[in-house]
Amino acid sequence: MISLNSRLKSITKERNSWLCVGLDISPDNLGSSDLSRLKEHTFNIIDATRDLAVAYKPNFAFFERWGSAGFSWLEETALYIGDDYIKIADAKRGDIGNTASQYAESIFNHFQFDCVTLSPYMGKDSIEPFIKYPDKGVFILCKTSNPSGVDFQDLKIDDGQQLYEKVARWANHLNENDNIGLVVGATVPDDLKRIREITPELPLLIPGVGAQGGDLRQSLMISNQSSVGLINISRSINFAGDMSPMAIRSAAKDFVERMRNFTIDDQKNNE
Amino acid sequence: MISLNSRLKSITKERNSWLCVGLDISPDNLGSSDLSRLKEHTFNIIDATRDLAVAYKPNFAFFERWGSAGFSWLEETALYIGDDYIKIADAKRGDIGNTASQYAESIFNHFQFDCVTLSPYMGKDSIEPFIKYPDKGVFILCKTSNPSGVDFQDLKIDDGQQLYEKVARWANHLNENDNIGLVVGATVPDDLKRIREITPELPLLIPGVGAQGGDLRQSLMISNQSSVGLINISRSINFAGDMSPMAIRSAAKDFVERMRNFTIDDQKNNE
Repeated sequence: MISLNSRLKSITKERNSWLCVGLDISPDNLGSSDLSRLKEHTFNIIDATRDLAVAYKPNFAFFERWGSAGFSWLEETALYIGDDYIKIADAKRGDIGNTASQYAESIFNHFQFDCVTLSPYMGKDSIEPFIKYPDKGVFILCKTSNPSGVDFQDLKIDDGQQLYEKVARWANHLNENDNIGLVVGATVPDDLKRIREITPELPLLIPGVGAQGGDLRQSLMISNQSSVGLINISRSINFAGDMSPMAIRSAAKDFVERMRNFTIDDQKNNE
Repeated sequence: MISLNSRLKSITKERNSWLCVGLDISPDNLGSSDLSRLKEHTFNIIDATRDLAVAYKPNFAFFERWGSAGFSWLEETALYIGDDYIKIADAKRGDIGNTASQYAESIFNHFQFDCVTLSPYMGKDSIEPFIKYPDKGVFILCKTSNPSGVDFQDLKIDDGQQLYEKVARWANHLNENDNIGLVVGATVPDDLKRIREITPELPLLIPGVGAQGGDLRQSLMISNQSSVGLINISRSINFAGDMSPMAIRSAAKDFVERMRNFTIDDQKNNE
């Protein structure tokens, strides 16, 4: 059984891409609250980016707001993505053991995702049910891209570390099955560097490039020094230009080509 | 518009009860994976406890594991509970602002809950969309009842406070609309005391009595010294005895009568 983190390494290498397409299908951005229109748009995004993406990351909130009808749409979306991509459930769950087991059942067995974003606040019990099988895994929130990410994550612990550093070290220790990664915002490049130093082996999932203003080159270069850094783009692809499949594809292609060029430049600089 | 916290105070006083019935309808405990059987059991629990409970708290994980069919069941459950109870969405969400707004839309507008459990890890942005309207609100995870709650919550910050104390103080500051409470486990009575000292005005939602072994009297007495302490019981009511409506009612009644007796004893002691 190939571990999630090994699969991440080989899929990014094979496809020469680090693009994770976030699916945050907001009715306000699309200008429609017609669920069949939202669904059609989701499928258009997937089809327009199939040869560019290595991962898709549906953001559960945008599905849950429609209740059971939204969850039907999420079921169809997970199926539509298929098995050739890393399917990331952006659900940010975190609960006591027996409840976490139910979420794992939901995300891995019912919806057939490969991995899920989790909050670390409730500790080890809340992660364990998700990391039992090497081929399924988690991205744990470490340093997030939102302005108030600093409220707690930057607190200095009495041993001199900041809380997010503590989370990164703790995740390292838990990574016995090679299936744990971290979420780190592109908006905090210094912290991204620090986390890459602390955890050279954990994959990083990096939101915050695009609408939130994080730097693509820096995020890609720092995170891929070792292991893998996946760059998540949601709004800048989902609602690119006139939102036609061509505009979506063109935005995604632009991101991937820039990534490839950075990598080539970087290789040249290292020669 | 009456604030959530005022409503909590008046409803517990009127009904002379502090019972929140958690709805964690596990197929393993029920011995059936037939969704119509699970739904029937949910409605039986609600009907058997209507004159005893002040709040119901469906645990989203147990619904989500069935996907869209589970969310239909959750929609029906929220409707079935009706408007005479505080409806708590035990969802433990936490995400950046624009995503949190979608979760608020889901929980308050679609499912019509009164409040939701949230994780503090991502800071203020992740709470704000849920506390805009005084009649809707949140219970923020502060000190949780699971063994690994200590992993991060007990860390000592360099100003001498523990992380959970910092969360409690921060929640106090955010409580401008009188609609914030905290989740504190019954399994950590000393921390519960400390939190009640720090935040005399915030309602506390207390899981961990019952299956997890927390002490009912202590939890009730400490938390209700000021403001309100709601005692959540899930498994010990959901799967009481032979799981008949009578067994469920009897378990719930026993909890509420013990609560009432403690309160009377305590009043006598204070006279």
